Amino acid sequence: MTRTDIAPLIKVGIIGGTGYTGVELLRLLAAHPNVVVNVITSRSEAGRAVADYFPNLRDTYTLNFQAPELDVFEGCDVVFSATPNGIAMEHAPQLLKAGTLLIDLAADFRLKDAATWQKWYQMEHACPELLEQAVYGLPELFHDELQGSRLIANPGCYPTATILGLAPLLASPLINPSSIIVDAKSGVSGAGRGANVATLFSEVSDSFKAYGASGHRHHPEITQVLQSVNACSRKPVELTFIPHLVPMLRGIHATIYADQTDLTLSLEAVHATIEQFYASKPFVDVLPLGQHPETRNVKGSNYCRIAVHRATGSNKLVILSVIDNLVKGAAGQAIQNMNVALGFAETTGLLASPQIP
Amino acid sequence: MTRTDIAPLIKVGIIGGTGYTGVELLRLLAAHPNVVVNVITSRSEAGRAVADYFPNLRDTYTLNFQAPELDVFEGCDVVFSATPNGIAMEHAPQLLKAGTLLIDLAADFRLKDAATWQKWYQMEHACPELLEQAVYGLPELFHDELQGSRLIANPGCYPTATILGLAPLLASPLINPSSIIVDAKSGVSGAGRGANVATLFSEVSDSFKAYGASGHRHHPEITQVLQSVNACSRKPVELTFIPHLVPMLRGIHATIYADQTDLTLSLEAVHATIEQFYASKPFVDVLPLGQHPETRNVKGSNYCRIAVHRATGSNKLVILSVIDNLVKGAAGQAIQNMNVALGFAETTGLLASPQIP
Amino acid sequence: MTRTDIAPLIKVGIIGGTGYTGVELLRLLAAHPNVVVNVITSRSEAGRAVADYFPNLRDTYTLNFQAPELDVFEGCDVVFSATPNGIAMEHAPQLLKAGTLLIDLAADFRLKDAATWQKWYQMEHACPELLEQAVYGLPELFHDELQGSRLIANPGCYPTATILGLAPLLASPLINPSSIIVDAKSGVSGAGRGANVATLFSEVSDSFKAYGASGHRHHPEITQVLQSVNACSRKPVELTFIPHLVPMLRGIHATIYADQTDLTLSLEAVHATIEQFYASKPFVDVLPLGQHPETRNVKGSNYCRIAVHRATGSNKLVILSVIDNLVKGAAGQAIQNMNVALGFAETTGLLASPQIP
Amino acid sequence: MTRTDIAPLIKVGIIGGTGYTGVELLRLLAAHPNVVVNVITSRSEAGRAVADYFPNLRDTYTLNFQAPELDVFEGCDVVFSATPNGIAMEHAPQLLKAGTLLIDLAADFRLKDAATWQKWYQMEHACPELLEQAVYGLPELFHDELQGSRLIANPGCYPTATILGLAPLLASPLINPSSIIVDAKSGVSGAGRGANVATLFSEVSDSFKAYGASGHRHHPEITQVLQSVNACSRKPVELTFIPHLVPMLRGIHATIYADQTDLTLSLEAVHATIEQFYASKPFVDVLPLGQHPETRNVKGSNYCRIAVHRATGSNKLVILSVIDNLVKGAAGQAIQNMNVALGFAETTGLLASPQIP
Repeated sequence: MTRTDIAPLIKVGIIGGTGYTGVELLRLLAAHPNVVVNVITSRSEAGRAVADYFPNLRDTYTLNFQAPELDVFEGCDVVFSATPNGIAMEHAPQLLKAGTLLIDLAADFRLKDAATWQKWYQMEHACPELLEQAVYGLPELFHDELQGSRLIANPGCYPTATILGLAPLLASPLINPSSIIVDAKSGVSGAGRGANVATLFSEVSDSFKAYGASGHRHHPEITQVLQSVNACSRKPVELTFIPHLVPMLRGIHATIYADQTDLTLSLEAVHATIEQFYASKPFVDVLPLGQHPETRNVKGSNYCRIAVHRATGSNKLVILSVIDNLVKGAAGQAIQNMNVALGFAETTGLLASPQIP
Repeated sequence: MTRTDIAPLIKVGIIGGTGYTGVELLRLLAAHPNVVVNVITSRSEAGRAVADYFPNLRDTYTLNFQAPELDVFEGCDVVFSATPNGIAMEHAPQLLKAGTLLIDLAADFRLKDAATWQKWYQMEHACPELLEQAVYGLPELFHDELQGSRLIANPGCYPTATILGLAPLLASPLINPSSIIVDAKSGVSGAGRGANVATLFSEVSDSFKAYGASGHRHHPEITQVLQSVNACSRKPVELTFIPHLVPMLRGIHATIYADQTDLTLSLEAVHATIEQFYASKPFVDVLPLGQHPETRNVKGSNYCRIAVHRATGSNKLVILSVIDNLVKGAAGQAIQNMNVALGFAETTGLLASPQIP
Repeated sequence: MTRTDIAPLIKVGIIGGTGYTGVELLRLLAAHPNVVVNVITSRSEAGRAVADYFPNLRDTYTLNFQAPELDVFEGCDVVFSATPNGIAMEHAPQLLKAGTLLIDLAADFRLKDAATWQKWYQMEHACPELLEQAVYGLPELFHDELQGSRLIANPGCYPTATILGLAPLLASPLINPSSIIVDAKSGVSGAGRGANVATLFSEVSDSFKAYGASGHRHHPEITQVLQSVNACSRKPVELTFIPHLVPMLRGIHATIYADQTDLTLSLEAVHATIEQFYASKPFVDVLPLGQHPETRNVKGSNYCRIAVHRATGSNKLVILSVIDNLVKGAAGQAIQNMNVALGFAETTGLLASPQIP
Repeated sequence: MTRTDIAPLIKVGIIGGTGYTGVELLRLLAAHPNVVVNVITSRSEAGRAVADYFPNLRDTYTLNFQAPELDVFEGCDVVFSATPNGIAMEHAPQLLKAGTLLIDLAADFRLKDAATWQKWYQMEHACPELLEQAVYGLPELFHDELQGSRLIANPGCYPTATILGLAPLLASPLINPSSIIVDAKSGVSGAGRGANVATLFSEVSDSFKAYGASGHRHHPEITQVLQSVNACSRKPVELTFIPHLVPMLRGIHATIYADQTDLTLSLEAVHATIEQFYASKPFVDVLPLGQHPETRNVKGSNYCRIAVHRATGSNKLVILSVIDNLVKGAAGQAIQNMNVALGFAETTGLLASPQIP
């Protein structure tokens, strides 16, 4: 017996399902009561059973991978693209024409400016005319735009943790938007499932390092979205973003530093502002003052947990923001976006608790 | 909003909920549609919010820990005891009198012989008269006895993986029951949540060791249960059991060696016997010939995955059996036992897929 | 045969040798050609063989732990104190009177101001009159003061990585000393060897968190030392310091942000300044521009590796500084201090290469 | 300053130095007082500085990789081959002709029978006539044959741990040689440094599995060597060997089961036999009765630590044998072999203590 025998309402297709976001989509969709996965493609594994390729999904899926022909998604209501950058944009025009909802978990539709996109991703964009139409899939900020949308750019994992940490402070505004430093740390699954010496167990276990200190693709994405919520008219968002690699499977921890502008405001008041901002958001959890979030406390879940501190004798606010990079930073958020776009309850299929230890 | 607002059918109590089996029970019960957790006790944390103690359960539970008075469980239909050995037996007589189902996740009711129990657990048994009545909670072997039972001894984690691996071969019988070697490996969560130098990260990370080579409490438990399924009339079950500690959070991997008695039988036939034995068991998954189970492919789930091999040029069968020690080896199996005892579908609340990576 | 049979020149005593800095001192001193460990104390393990307590040192030491009577160090030329805070200061007056060199690996003599010390360490200082005389044992900055010294305060691990990263930039000065942010990450061994739930494998493995965001004892230590090298007359050193816990055994990674004051200076020039500052320092390795240090590349060694970057489109310098917290951050630096104080070559016994993987 | 400026006595060449055995050879040879590394080859990295490729060796080596032309080793006294299987045999005839000592860390010369070799390694052997002449480089068993040898087959890591654990019991003989089961566990570095999905951090971290259960190349190697020490005339060595992968960087732990033949012999007597066997062997450490070795207690060192237990109520001896797969299982043993072959003290350069944590 498999859970996907339940009568389907919504037919789902997945482009490129052999990576970590692919298997996470499959895991989470299996628990969603309103969908059935109809199609999953893979050029290299076409014909192979999903359950054979991902033995954790034995007893859950009977589906086989299919070759990625464009028409395999005919009849799908939603298509998730869980491929490397540059693939979803090849599928977008046809899917949109067919009225299919396309949610791209890669970066093809995240930036509004085609030239900036081409500079950072080093390829020609196949459909720059769609960039404006794409909605940035962070439901905590763009819920209304997502309702009924048919093209959703699922945010990057670093941007999700960072933007959720900063948005309440920029929207008030409580901080100087030009003073932001984001010291971000990621688990290794964020680097994907490619055969790569740099992410071998023997290269990254029991060690820690920064990387990309001179520039990272998530920088323009973060800046673009934060600028859209920046309520300070005098200064633009300027941030320093340094990513690091943590010897753990999953998790993003963003440590964010920014100058508080009005120092007469107590930390309690800052905390209350953040809590208020997320009062109606089911997946953002603002911790009580004094606590520190741990990535394990969101592992496997769609939650983002946030804490705010003020450093000793300083005007700097320190925001700690954690997510699971494969859930709220990828597959979970994509399903949340689907829920909002198609009118399901936002939390449908996404309320499983994090698992510790 | 919390999921426990759903109208409860079955009221659950938990004795001693501050360890790893306690938090895992809470996580799994939150996903069970027919129960509500009414009471959870802890002497040290009485009065504290569960969600404060286990931040992974923020947004899921609003319950507080209570002091472990005996009458706090009045009105509970089921009580899980997730305490150290020797506590459940203090509660058992009163709970049974009240008609409550008691499921002990510790060892108080696992052995039928009080003298053997007292030898291995180094204490007086409080109610030896109940040992015979207690049902050993391995539903794959004792489903009928569990139906309607009111006192269930939830198996140990090592015994669960070992017995599930050996039962089909002993029941046929295909192996010499006196030739068994169990080389078992456990993740560190199996050692519990006590403050202990030996299980510090800095003591066990990036290392591997055997322990208890001269004798382990799970040895008599495994032998007792295996003897009850042993179909060989000439020889008793005799086994060598050596546990090891793996630097991982969760998981049991039992590598089991036994002499195949009838060497004319092909490995395919042996494999078919095991598959047949578990054909109707939803949580035991027999892998195709040639595959090796990985503990990550059961992590967080109630599955046991089993493979059988024959070593090169040898009459030895090699059975590889993996479970998650906190789920099928503890909290998940306890809920499966509750489902069977109370007449719910056996898989209710337990079908979430393992999460990789 | 043991290496400690070699004719000793210098007699070493160790106060409190059962923690991680104790065992690391023993490991490193075994490779030092000019010393022999004569005495090692432990209240709890008195009488037990060191090699029994630390089986990695079987074949290396035949010594037993002794009870920590004050006179056990008579005849020692050097005493290392590898105890918790507050113990070395009890021994200091008598050892100094005897002409013994005392190197304290804890914090008793790190701060010059007794009141500040008492505030952060929450105890009365036993000999505040010695604070001025104690030399801060960072040989890259205080080599001359260390020569012939008899009381050395070995720096903390976070301060070592941080100060070495910042000193060249403050001494020039190239940065605004009031703009410093230190986002520091430590392996778990930094938390010591005490029985503690918070550092169990099952609590910290596969997770990441910040801690002590509202204030850490290393903050005043870092500020005090950096102020002593600050060449900017207009502004004092002010820094925000946030420590984090990494699921790895050893290693400190400090990511340091500071505003570059003269933006006409190229990154190459900044890099050259740092290289020049450490040109004659055997244990500080400035990486080529563009590289990122990894903690594994200093593991087990006394090296500090430093890189400097400038963040995209920003005036912020980003300094990455890594050490092994138990070597350059504790036992190795203590031996380096001994070498300088007693006139041995600075690198004696400390040139073993880091071990990867 | 680099340590390799010391006046060299013995010139060393390394074939294929970009893997984990290559970097470990470099690390260990840097600490050897009688050698200098003159040449190291790599096809892919020719021209690149070793210290740039392996930043842990900055400050230690100034050497560059060279293209692997056969004549680059002219003038070398010793050549270590740290390549995949099948490369050393191409170099062997020329090096032997030149009188160079060749130590192959791969498998080319481990098996005496060319047909068996070709079956397991799936290639034609380039110089089968040299197989007989090659000495199996396990100095604890073949010290005399190694003295003056010019062609040494360095043992595999699993065979080293297994053979050292069993040799004393087979030589006595105390066990039934046909009853052996070896349940072996290895750290991930044993799988090498190739780009490979199966050894990515995200695939093996926090998980455990068996592999190769139907047959492993180390099986014939172990059998061949054990048969040569088997003192039982009635029965040959027959063993079941199952390898497992542990989420740790380094280490082999072999858990070995065998039937004790004379059950009147006490465990103390068995233990004494093993101790006696290794009394003069500097790198084999027999633990006191009752103890369990941990891989961390040999990490980075050339030690093998062995314990013997008897399972409860059983005639089975359980031998626990641990090594560091990259040291005693590869590079360290290769240097030990060089020491013996060339007449240095056997322990030269190899006495650094294991580093914990």
